[in-house]
Amino acid sequence: MHGDQAFAVDARLAADSCRLGQLFGNEVLLFNEQRYDWLVLVPQVVGAVELFDLNRTQQQQLAAALEHVALRLQQHGRGDKLNIGALGNVVRQLHVHVLLRTEGDPAWPGPVWGHSPRQALSTEALAQAAARWRQLLQLD
Amino acid sequence: MHGDQAFAVDARLAADSCRLGQLFGNEVLLFNEQRYDWLVLVPQVVGAVELFDLNRTQQQQLAAALEHVALRLQQHGRGDKLNIGALGNVVRQLHVHVLLRTEGDPAWPGPVWGHSPRQALSTEALAQAAARWRQLLQLD
Repeated sequence: MHGDQAFAVDARLAADSCRLGQLFGNEVLLFNEQRYDWLVLVPQVVGAVELFDLNRTQQQQLAAALEHVALRLQQHGRGDKLNIGALGNVVRQLHVHVLLRTEGDPAWPGPVWGHSPRQALSTEALAQAAARWRQLLQLD
Repeated sequence: MHGDQAFAVDARLAADSCRLGQLFGNEVLLFNEQRYDWLVLVPQVVGAVELFDLNRTQQQQLAAALEHVALRLQQHGRGDKLNIGALGNVVRQLHVHVLLRTEGDPAWPGPVWGHSPRQALSTEALAQAAARWRQLLQLD
């Protein structure tokens, strides 16, 4: 069905984030949000919407990427509780949010999704944060 | 650290749900909520808080249980978009929400978590829903 299409990250996801690189067949994005250390994984699979649209190998690659970024977020990010979510109610392209939460953060203890408008970083701060996370995630 | 403790589902999760059974080392709960077909998986691992507190085998078992319930939710549940989340901001015990959403549902397109108070089923309706999902999930 999608055989002729090249993979591309959804334009809305791309607009709200900075690309860090790729990991085991997944795009790794830094969500452009001041208040949280927030990554998004997007499997490079044309047409995937649900987790189980991925074949077994793609699922294992996503799991490996998820573990890689989750452990480094926990080690180096602000906060101490991972929140992981695959919703896709707005952007249908399969993507997985992985972010760190802290007791008392703006949305605590509710979810960050739908809580409040995104608070973007400045262009310079976003570039700095992206460079830092590329290094911490060994995506250079 | 937790070697002497027996596994038990967190009391708050248990109070808000009906146990359906177990699947590949995970408790399967039907969340007691009228508006959504909503399951919760709880790995039977004492002290687990984050996804990667599970060892490789436990992760694979959780993934297998997740696939099993997700596919049957999509096939038999109300709605057409899966929402999968592991948050744990309130209840720390590792648990994964798997539910179906529909465009225009009460929380659409935001997350269900933190949206509004739970609307419980009657005792009879909960027992009926639990029996139906036990059969559909082959947990009898």
